[in-house]
Amino acid sequence: MAASLRLLGAASGLRYWSRRLRPAAGSFAAVASKTPVGFIGLGNMGNPMAKNLMKHGYPLIIYDVFPDACKEFQDAGEQVVSSPADVAEKADRIITMLPTSINAIEAYSGANGILKKVKKGSLLIDSSTIDPAVSKELAKEVEKMGAVFMDAPVSGGVGAARSGNLTFMVGGVEDEFAAAQELLGCMGSNVVYCGAVGTGQAAKICNNMLLAISMIGTAEAMNLGIRLGLDPKLLAKILNMSSGRCWSSDTYNPVPGVMDGVPSANNYQGGFGTTLMAKDLGLAQDSATSTKSPILLGSLAHQIYRMMCAKGYSKKDFSSVFQFLREEETF
Amino acid sequence: MAASLRLLGAASGLRYWSRRLRPAAGSFAAVASKTPVGFIGLGNMGNPMAKNLMKHGYPLIIYDVFPDACKEFQDAGEQVVSSPADVAEKADRIITMLPTSINAIEAYSGANGILKKVKKGSLLIDSSTIDPAVSKELAKEVEKMGAVFMDAPVSGGVGAARSGNLTFMVGGVEDEFAAAQELLGCMGSNVVYCGAVGTGQAAKICNNMLLAISMIGTAEAMNLGIRLGLDPKLLAKILNMSSGRCWSSDTYNPVPGVMDGVPSANNYQGGFGTTLMAKDLGLAQDSATSTKSPILLGSLAHQIYRMMCAKGYSKKDFSSVFQFLREEETF
Amino acid sequence: MAASLRLLGAASGLRYWSRRLRPAAGSFAAVASKTPVGFIGLGNMGNPMAKNLMKHGYPLIIYDVFPDACKEFQDAGEQVVSSPADVAEKADRIITMLPTSINAIEAYSGANGILKKVKKGSLLIDSSTIDPAVSKELAKEVEKMGAVFMDAPVSGGVGAARSGNLTFMVGGVEDEFAAAQELLGCMGSNVVYCGAVGTGQAAKICNNMLLAISMIGTAEAMNLGIRLGLDPKLLAKILNMSSGRCWSSDTYNPVPGVMDGVPSANNYQGGFGTTLMAKDLGLAQDSATSTKSPILLGSLAHQIYRMMCAKGYSKKDFSSVFQFLREEETF
Amino acid sequence: MAASLRLLGAASGLRYWSRRLRPAAGSFAAVASKTPVGFIGLGNMGNPMAKNLMKHGYPLIIYDVFPDACKEFQDAGEQVVSSPADVAEKADRIITMLPTSINAIEAYSGANGILKKVKKGSLLIDSSTIDPAVSKELAKEVEKMGAVFMDAPVSGGVGAARSGNLTFMVGGVEDEFAAAQELLGCMGSNVVYCGAVGTGQAAKICNNMLLAISMIGTAEAMNLGIRLGLDPKLLAKILNMSSGRCWSSDTYNPVPGVMDGVPSANNYQGGFGTTLMAKDLGLAQDSATSTKSPILLGSLAHQIYRMMCAKGYSKKDFSSVFQFLREEETF
Repeated sequence: MAASLRLLGAASGLRYWSRRLRPAAGSFAAVASKTPVGFIGLGNMGNPMAKNLMKHGYPLIIYDVFPDACKEFQDAGEQVVSSPADVAEKADRIITMLPTSINAIEAYSGANGILKKVKKGSLLIDSSTIDPAVSKELAKEVEKMGAVFMDAPVSGGVGAARSGNLTFMVGGVEDEFAAAQELLGCMGSNVVYCGAVGTGQAAKICNNMLLAISMIGTAEAMNLGIRLGLDPKLLAKILNMSSGRCWSSDTYNPVPGVMDGVPSANNYQGGFGTTLMAKDLGLAQDSATSTKSPILLGSLAHQIYRMMCAKGYSKKDFSSVFQFLREEETF
Repeated sequence: MAASLRLLGAASGLRYWSRRLRPAAGSFAAVASKTPVGFIGLGNMGNPMAKNLMKHGYPLIIYDVFPDACKEFQDAGEQVVSSPADVAEKADRIITMLPTSINAIEAYSGANGILKKVKKGSLLIDSSTIDPAVSKELAKEVEKMGAVFMDAPVSGGVGAARSGNLTFMVGGVEDEFAAAQELLGCMGSNVVYCGAVGTGQAAKICNNMLLAISMIGTAEAMNLGIRLGLDPKLLAKILNMSSGRCWSSDTYNPVPGVMDGVPSANNYQGGFGTTLMAKDLGLAQDSATSTKSPILLGSLAHQIYRMMCAKGYSKKDFSSVFQFLREEETF
Repeated sequence: MAASLRLLGAASGLRYWSRRLRPAAGSFAAVASKTPVGFIGLGNMGNPMAKNLMKHGYPLIIYDVFPDACKEFQDAGEQVVSSPADVAEKADRIITMLPTSINAIEAYSGANGILKKVKKGSLLIDSSTIDPAVSKELAKEVEKMGAVFMDAPVSGGVGAARSGNLTFMVGGVEDEFAAAQELLGCMGSNVVYCGAVGTGQAAKICNNMLLAISMIGTAEAMNLGIRLGLDPKLLAKILNMSSGRCWSSDTYNPVPGVMDGVPSANNYQGGFGTTLMAKDLGLAQDSATSTKSPILLGSLAHQIYRMMCAKGYSKKDFSSVFQFLREEETF
Repeated sequence: MAASLRLLGAASGLRYWSRRLRPAAGSFAAVASKTPVGFIGLGNMGNPMAKNLMKHGYPLIIYDVFPDACKEFQDAGEQVVSSPADVAEKADRIITMLPTSINAIEAYSGANGILKKVKKGSLLIDSSTIDPAVSKELAKEVEKMGAVFMDAPVSGGVGAARSGNLTFMVGGVEDEFAAAQELLGCMGSNVVYCGAVGTGQAAKICNNMLLAISMIGTAEAMNLGIRLGLDPKLLAKILNMSSGRCWSSDTYNPVPGVMDGVPSANNYQGGFGTTLMAKDLGLAQDSATSTKSPILLGSLAHQIYRMMCAKGYSKKDFSSVFQFLREEETF
């Protein structure tokens, strides 16, 4: 983090906001009467995110297609309603956290979607990871209703969602960024302004595509080195002091026995599932196709994670690609 | 470097030696009468490497297939001979620095090769980057003659060779490592013991394969992000504080305007040529084929650098893959 | 063709119709008063297709976003209207031939789209090559209006469009196939029923993906063989009598000098442009992503044609991939 | 075959020889006293090949590293010796049929290799599938001894070896082709002259690389089409009457239920094993690397077959790539 902050000095022109700089949570709680915040999508990620808003004193208006997902919040005294439209009727700041582009379109533009009852001047923040072209489309429709849309996908998994340490990559009109920060800062330790609508998605997609490529590359290089007689720990050290160094080699090494506290040390349990990586690579693929950007390695990485999903790796952490490549030829 | 040293603490079991820990050059010079060291291959890299040995007071026995390459050394008073065999007759420590596996085989096993006149107990260090299978083969032949062979390929380019800051990755019998260090430490600031013969080559090949993959990945991600509307500097910062971070994104970014002092800031002049990367990927490919190791991204990276060589990029730095991918579709 | 017909015998269950089996064009003309047919999209392909309908005696109702494209038909006495909706008002059989999914959506569902004025029982045939998911979506909307939608993309280029020798791959309700045949048979020599809506697109996409893969494969194999010392004509003959045989090797060989009358014999002029192949591969990619089908070679083929478009090959025939791979490394 | 012969007319300049044109087997037998032929390597392929030479009346001099492999021939009265050198002492025409480059080098250049006792003017024919660079190397060494070397790898499996229907692709001095034909024609129905030494291997490697690519392409296209709702038999028919047509789609379709009498109809038993395809692709890869020929799809096909070997497909026919791709994603 120290390193990150250094990169992000005043001269950089980067609109960036980190927990270290913000008022303590306590001072938020001191603010007497907060207006309610809508929250749509209380899944694995949405649930702890919404709870962090509650901790900061925001009353919630809740909706999920699965009523069971709302029960916990209802018991805690939050208001549960029966459609996204109803959320929009009762809250002028809404956060959506949904699994796919289709779910997001339904929540906004569906028969009982937000747009049916959205109030002028509302701030709608979509933290789903979806196609940036869809984000732009939704933003246009929202704008027609006199409201504001921002895309703010997250990086960091369920653990970071619980501890309020997510990173949000935010796209939208810059004037509205401060208003978005107020809410997102309750759920994440980094909130980065990326540019116009859709650029939050773009930043996330590009990062995850590069992550997928360097993880597979690390797995290939480690596997090749081991087969050529190198000790895995030694090889990792050499890579990490050389130009092959990357997050996948020095922070999240995919080879069992090289590092502690990472999924490879725990049979690839936990972490970021292969099926989620395959989904993000599908978005990268779509974006690349529509912008005619060549992504040779990105496409192949997509196909590799696709294949892994079909070979029983879908729920394992995405670093299990080492195990996938490692299987020995048998005759 | 501080970070590297931390990784390489005493507890790690890594045989590792850095300039910071070695006696100053002056103290070397104080040693009265050094025995001569043979040096075969005085090209772009071999020339400055040999000069660093001279600076440390080692008399040289010189050979190169191109007599012109020896002239400078002859003028400086070093002894030039007419074949690798003659080098072996006059020196019992020899360093070879040659462009390809075939050149190395010729220098060792050819009609006038080192093996024709090598003395028992000689130490032969090959710093060429070649197929590890060839290194092992040469080691066997050398051993038959009662001498010792180590592979010690370098990372770092001509600049590092001049300043004596190369990294050597050394494979061979561990008992001989100290003897190799004495010489290699005059030419490099890092000398890492990697294991049995061939593992020096293996470490270099694996590192460069991962480097090639993450460089292309960085170029693809940066290009996609730019086409999706992100500012390149901002995108680089986001990647570097996230899981996409790698040496190619944070130290050697391929996008012009993102960093200073790297080849992308200078029209991809200098640095590590595309043709050299293609050569190293060819070695990775050969090693993977012979050990039946799947390298899906590594193979494709090889083909991409191959294609770049055919499209006019052979002499540009390998980060010019960004430029290669960046060319716009025209109709 | 004889071979094809053999494959398509009565026992095969294939709904298939070929010019050889249909009444002569003259007998069509004899039919006195044909009801008008709508035609939307008079581009390179649409223009000659519409003319073939005219030759068979169908009065046309014409629309194109570029008024100039209609002039020729107006001069010939056909009726030109000012929107797709107006076409739908005057014709109950409409053929659309548009460049992309977005154009097709606009023509059907836009503010002045067909659906605004379509009559119950109308037959709407879309011969555009678009995403099969879009075809299905359009079909649903058309069905809501009480009309019938079929997708009927073509294979064969401008030449086949002129001579009425296109192949149509048709998806939709089987009961309506005969009605579609009546019109499509005026423009093509093969009309193949593929199954439910979207399967016409699916068949075309799958064929073109396999074509792209085998064309690049042929180019790689021919180039490798030539570099290994084989005569290109001899190598082509060996492939064509062996298991490497494919349409790209035996009918459309990409190596200049091997065959006459193909684009490779004419500096890759004419034929099927690289940019069109890249477009079709983008559709294959989208369909594969949405159905989670691994297409490792298909993805890479897509990226290769993408790159070629950026390197000046967009207007050359897609067999120019041989030339693209062939360029020599220079130092 | 009729089609092949048409391709190979007199005007083509192709040195080609087919069983239909050669004297009947009986007329060979009539030749009174044939000189013995050496045969080294009596494995799955070598065994039936050698037997076909016996049927044509050639006495054999036999050697195999596994003595058991020779027993059958000894019982039949052929002469078994104890090294390749001994074969060379007793026969001036020798055929070698070995699994890898290393085995071939050992048989020719090893301590007891053919070259130790080869007679001037001997004809040495290597039917192994090996690296063409090794073939050229062996040819040079053989030439130094005053003998002649030809590479003559086969296509066709064990069945074709038994029935004498192999195809031989022959590289070497053209003047010696007729002499090679005399022997090879006893074991194969097609004997094709390809050019200088190594071109036999080159032709085989190029064919098999294209075969691998088009087989995977067919599997991807069929799988995608099925997932998009097409009937597999119908899709195969459409491909086979269109530009996607290839040997893998029309003669050896990888989808169960589409064709009879092919491995896909028999759970991928029999045919050409995945592990053998992976080996041939390794040779293609090596040749491409050494000649700097880009093979993007060829490399990826290699890696795919490599992975299949590690996932339990090594003994299945190489068309089982359809099954490999077909496995469904599970969650």
